[in-house]
Order: sequence, then structure tokens, then C-alpha cells
Amino acid sequence: MTIGPLLLIGGRENKEQHPEILERFVELCRRHGGTPRIGVVTTASTEGQALFAEYSRVFRRLGVQQVAGLNVDRRVEASAPALCQRMDELTGIFFSGGDQLRITSTLGGSRFHQILLQRHRKDGLAVGGTSAGASMMSHTMIVEGDAHESPTKNTVKMAAGMGLWNGAVIDQHFSQRGRIGRLLSAVAQNPDVLGIGLDENTALEVRLEETMLTVWGASTVTVVDGRAIQETNASESDDNQPLALTGVMLHVLPKGYGMDLTTRTPRRIG
Amino acid sequence: MTIGPLLLIGGRENKEQHPEILERFVELCRRHGGTPRIGVVTTASTEGQALFAEYSRVFRRLGVQQVAGLNVDRRVEASAPALCQRMDELTGIFFSGGDQLRITSTLGGSRFHQILLQRHRKDGLAVGGTSAGASMMSHTMIVEGDAHESPTKNTVKMAAGMGLWNGAVIDQHFSQRGRIGRLLSAVAQNPDVLGIGLDENTALEVRLEETMLTVWGASTVTVVDGRAIQETNASESDDNQPLALTGVMLHVLPKGYGMDLTTRTPRRIG
Repeated sequence: MTIGPLLLIGGRENKEQHPEILERFVELCRRHGGTPRIGVVTTASTEGQALFAEYSRVFRRLGVQQVAGLNVDRRVEASAPALCQRMDELTGIFFSGGDQLRITSTLGGSRFHQILLQRHRKDGLAVGGTSAGASMMSHTMIVEGDAHESPTKNTVKMAAGMGLWNGAVIDQHFSQRGRIGRLLSAVAQNPDVLGIGLDENTALEVRLEETMLTVWGASTVTVVDGRAIQETNASESDDNQPLALTGVMLHVLPKGYGMDLTTRTPRRIG
Repeated sequence: MTIGPLLLIGGRENKEQHPEILERFVELCRRHGGTPRIGVVTTASTEGQALFAEYSRVFRRLGVQQVAGLNVDRRVEASAPALCQRMDELTGIFFSGGDQLRITSTLGGSRFHQILLQRHRKDGLAVGGTSAGASMMSHTMIVEGDAHESPTKNTVKMAAGMGLWNGAVIDQHFSQRGRIGRLLSAVAQNPDVLGIGLDENTALEVRLEETMLTVWGASTVTVVDGRAIQETNASESDDNQPLALTGVMLHVLPKGYGMDLTTRTPRRIG
């Protein structure tokens, strides 16, 4: 029984000249040095066919011989026996970007979802996802929110995610779209969750068994640790009133850095 | 001998229906309940005449009977005896927005600058400034920098400011323009300086004698305290390499909150 690794990508990962993040995902799918067999889920997008063609091409170029399309656009397809059977032979599943609510509303609670969680938790299945495909991994996920605003309770809209990584809340396109406010807002609502802000072309590898996080890619992962928050008006303030937040611990981690999840201590790895 | 109060505004302060920030500035200019006499410096802008007309109208509407234009566009004017004489009778000086380098390159080291510092430090002169007029107040100021980027050494360009508030580095239009990265970058270069991110229509009152900060206005002031930073690659990294930063303390403070400058402890005031 092994929990599989997660690779959360902040969107716009390089697919051509320096595809180091997708290479890392392929590596994570080689269990015990074996053959990677990757399924691609494009449910988040309305252009699933084109996205599958692109990821299929890139993964094949990176040496993956088996790339399966798990193209689910309607709930009824998400429990189809043929789909579930295809999942059995995979060593990794990759979720494309798009809209995270399409992922959860189409796949949440389906047979596909059950098998995904089970194979990830017990069978070491690697799960990767970019943009919406990264956001959906937490228990409670960010759906949308205003960027370029200081945090208010209204800044962020949450929904139940796919529950692959509990205890975190994940945002993507982070620096590029100025999303610190909405991440702070999510953390203020429950400082126990660890806020994760993923920049574009940057990834966080999550190993729950080793309780280790590792950063890959070109930019940084911002970690918002709210456990030491001393004061907040999160519960008393009106929806549009500015949030007060004191004592937030912030880490900005590029490649070569990581963090222990138990102690929440960042450290240099490379 | 009294050090005057500073009022640093993040730009776009309300001038019409709820001009609470400018009202506060007028209040700060009423020393011992006396008559406020305000000088307006529009050096930062290329449209100084129009800006002076606007601030003059607003301050007069708020009950200020003496509003003087200190319109300095060239260095030679900045040491003119007539200008210096006009400063003697003022209880407050307000700096408009524009380009902070115009302020420092035109006024830095002039007789105007000397009198400004002297009257602020010894004579209780209130100094207010919005946008560029706030940025220039620190010893080392942010000139420009990429927004929407995770911090690199290149993210931020610094220059010597007017030195009214040492120990801080100030950024404005903060949440609205996604500037957390460049403020983190500035703090990483010397974690002793306190990073101050001012949202639009929001102000920070700085009382150096009482070592107290107080927030006013509609949104929030973000305080980045880097003293506890444990690790950074600020000195070793290439200019465009992402910065690593661990252990940054962050506070988000709306109106009704403040902070003691000596202990760097935020607290509720209202």
C-alpha cells in the first residue's frame, strides 16, 4: 500500500523546448523504473479533443508509449465500466486545465472518482494536473475570486474539490494574475489549511507519505501558513469589508526548495 | 521639538463623496487645533497645474483657507528664496502622484528638501503624499518593477528617496496592480526594512515619535516583515532567477488596525 505522488502545476507548463515539469510527471509515473502508462483527463475543458492530442504528442515525445484519453464530458460516462477498466492499467493520470467546476461537477462522486482516490491512496497512482487540474486536488477548492483586490470574504468562492490532498487550498496562475488576496482570504476562513499559490510553468510535487513538498519549474510556489494568525475579522466582517489578518507566515519557494508538511518548515533540497 | 505625522496614501484617494483620507490629512495639519495651512507639491506630475487646481478645490471644501501651490518643475526653482519663505508658514505639505523619480531628481538635496526635513523633524510639519508622493518618503524607494511576476532580483528597481521615513520601503496601488512580488523582492535585499504595500484609497499614518502606524481608508495596508527571514538566495541568485524567501511575516491591516513600529506587533485600534 503506497500513496501515489501528486504533481500540481500552475498552468502554462512548457511543452516544447524545456518540458521539465511534464518530464518530472513522466518520471513519477515510472513506478520502480517500470513503463509509464498515462491517462489524460480533459474534462475541465470544452476543447478536450485538441488538448488530448497535444498532451498525447508531448508525452509520447517524452518516451511514454501508452497514452490513453479518458474523455469524460457527461456524468453518465464517468461510471462507464469500459472507462473504469482502462484506469486499472494506468500508472499516472493527468488532468488538463479549464474550469475546475467542470471536473468536480462531472466526475465528483462517480465510479471514476472512487477508483481515482483508491488507486492513488493504495496503489501508488501518480496524479498530475495543471491549472484547474491542480486546483481541484484539494478537499475544498477555490472556484473563482477577484484578483487585484485586497482580501475580503467575498474575494473568493469555494467548492468541494476532488480530495486528493486534504489540508491544502490551491491557487494557480498565481503571480501572473495577482491572486495573493484571494489565497489569503481562503486561508483566513480556516487557518488550518495550507495556502498554495502556484506560478505558471511551475509545479509542486506532493508526497503525502513522506510529508514532503518539492518545487519544480521556472518560477515560484508561494506558501501561506496561517496557523500563527493572531487576529482576523473573518467571521465578523461584512462580505465586502476588507479582511484583517495578522501573523501570516509566507514562504516563496523556487526550484531546489521544498517543505516538510508536518513541521511546515521550508528547506533547501537541491 | 516634535516630529510631524506622515500620511502615506496608495493612490486614487476619494476626493468627492467620502474624502476621509484627505480629511484626516487636514486634521493632521491642525496643530494644537489651529488653522491648517497646506502646501501642495505637484512636482511628480507633468500636469501640475491641473492637479494643484483639484487639490486646492478639495482642501478648500474641507475647510482649509490657505492652500499654497509649491510648483517646482526644475531644480533651480527648488532653492529659490521665495519658495523657501512660503514653506515657513505651512503646517502641512502634500505631494501629488506622478513619477517618484521626478520628485527626487528635482527636489533631492535642494534647499526645499532641507527645509522639508528640518520642519518635519523639529517643527511638527505634517507631510502627506499619494502614489509617487507616498513612495518617495522612504530612505530607499521603489522606482519601478514588474508586477505579476514572482520576485526576482530584477523585479524591482530602487533609488534614494526623500528620507522622511527611514526603515521602510513603500509601494502603492498595491493589491490593484499585483505588486506583492516586487515588495518581497525589495525586502529580501535587506530584511531590516519594513515593506509597506498601500492599496488605493487607503492610507497609513506614521507617527515616528510614538512609533505607531494607523490605517485609514477603504481597503488594506499589507505589511511585510522580513526580520525573521530564514533563508534567501538574494545575494547569490542571477538577476532573473526566482528569489527564494522563507519565514516572511505578513500582516493585512484595514482601517481600525495599526502596528507598533518598535515591536512590529499589529493591533486593533478602533
